Amino acid sequence: MFTGLSAFPLTPLHNDQVDENAYRGLITRLAAAGVDSITALGSTGSYAYLSREERGRVAHLAVEHAGNVPVFVGIGALRTSHVLAHADDAAHAGASALLLAPMSYQALTENDVFELFRAVTEHTELPVIVYDNPGTTHFTFTINLYARIAQLPGIASIKIPALPSNSAEAQKRVQEIRSVIPANMTIGISGDQSAVGGLKAGCDAWYSVIGGTLPELAVKLTRLAQNDESQQATEESARLAPLWELNAEFGSLRVVAAIAEYLGLVLEKCLPLPIQGLNEQQRARVTAVVDQLDLA
Amino acid sequence: MFTGLSAFPLTPLHNDQVDENAYRGLITRLAAAGVDSITALGSTGSYAYLSREERGRVAHLAVEHAGNVPVFVGIGALRTSHVLAHADDAAHAGASALLLAPMSYQALTENDVFELFRAVTEHTELPVIVYDNPGTTHFTFTINLYARIAQLPGIASIKIPALPSNSAEAQKRVQEIRSVIPANMTIGISGDQSAVGGLKAGCDAWYSVIGGTLPELAVKLTRLAQNDESQQATEESARLAPLWELNAEFGSLRVVAAIAEYLGLVLEKCLPLPIQGLNEQQRARVTAVVDQLDLA
Repeated sequence: MFTGLSAFPLTPLHNDQVDENAYRGLITRLAAAGVDSITALGSTGSYAYLSREERGRVAHLAVEHAGNVPVFVGIGALRTSHVLAHADDAAHAGASALLLAPMSYQALTENDVFELFRAVTEHTELPVIVYDNPGTTHFTFTINLYARIAQLPGIASIKIPALPSNSAEAQKRVQEIRSVIPANMTIGISGDQSAVGGLKAGCDAWYSVIGGTLPELAVKLTRLAQNDESQQATEESARLAPLWELNAEFGSLRVVAAIAEYLGLVLEKCLPLPIQGLNEQQRARVTAVVDQLDLA
Repeated sequence: MFTGLSAFPLTPLHNDQVDENAYRGLITRLAAAGVDSITALGSTGSYAYLSREERGRVAHLAVEHAGNVPVFVGIGALRTSHVLAHADDAAHAGASALLLAPMSYQALTENDVFELFRAVTEHTELPVIVYDNPGTTHFTFTINLYARIAQLPGIASIKIPALPSNSAEAQKRVQEIRSVIPANMTIGISGDQSAVGGLKAGCDAWYSVIGGTLPELAVKLTRLAQNDESQQATEESARLAPLWELNAEFGSLRVVAAIAEYLGLVLEKCLPLPIQGLNEQQRARVTAVVDQLDLA
């Protein structure tokens, strides 16, 4: 279940309310495109900004409209008791697994984070995906902490940050992680520009921002990389360089929100304030890339 | 109102609930020690970890037990609409001012943060203190953004991070900030080890972690620095070096929580999980410093 393409949809807002209609459309679109799983309420799904009630509702909608596609649900929060409450809500909604990032306000120690994962795995019967995203959590995992957490019962996968672009270095890093985790635990790459390189370097899964909004493109890239047609996958990823450059400049959330708005999948200003999203000039650059690369 | 010592109390928890009894005791102690203001629900008060209901209740308790001491209330949250709700609750509780940090999960732009402060100042009639704490918010203000936000109606003060230890550099930095803000807006130093240096360099206020738990010590330091007995203030701050070193090593929140627990002001394990607080060995070092410096 923790292999292939996991698509991370936006949770679009409209006037500071979850736009349930648009969200249903996004989930239906992902299921139709044949993604391997859907991760609701990832960073791209703005989990950190939503209330418990909103998150419970979004998890329900995702499961309801995903058909047979397994739905993973992000349960991160700053306080452990809130994380456990989100885990209960996700289970109640019918989630197949939980995604947990160690969100921080005060800097966390390794032991704080280990105990957080222990509390969650003791609390739930659902598999847990470790979410390593230092750009948003401001917590940096060590390989030693990966190893300790991987021994907890129920840890199913680890979502790692972008790998080095050099393929030998990327492979070395994946092997280093593989050497400290159980054989049945998978490694998933994030950072869309790094996805094909990551799959080629031995990652089992791609936890994908762009897959949540442009699922056919992401499915195609994933299948090429999985079927040993890795030269084609590399070429296709290289063709998308203008998109990866926008992500690097503005952050993938703002870019993918602008794409979803341009494609009419969500209403304008779909991100939670204070995140303003891209301005008109920046949007024009995004839409030019969408047109140029024929992403629509 | 935005000068002198503003003391930042812990919001102690017990079994994942706000320990209202201990909190009343902390506030009463601050008022009795003659602090110039109390900032409830600062970073030290774990605002980021508490629910809206808990924060409203804590704000009420602070105002109720502060006597004539003005109470400022931290209203930060990841989502603008939540910040506005906290502002309403703080006003309802009788707060004299609001403290606002630009919390982030996704990195914020300068414009995102400016619009957040604009939304809040348009929404409330209470004065607003700008809370610049890149260590927790992961947002770095530029001097240009200070200048833009300072022009908004109702911005009363700015809480700046620790200054350079070199006094000429510290003075230069304070003058640089002063040159871009209105004359009636104050500058407050944070980073307790930097407080005396900051007051000597021209800061009007000290936004103090240690002042929330050891208010007599902080009042004494503040009065010495304010009354041009700055040599004595410098000497007293230098005497406290072992305390400042603990803060640098473990973070001031964990240290001040261990002190409050040692002094019996709060029950053990008063911090919100996942923050475990200091272990036994680390606590022993803190209590040794408390005894050695006669802080009890």
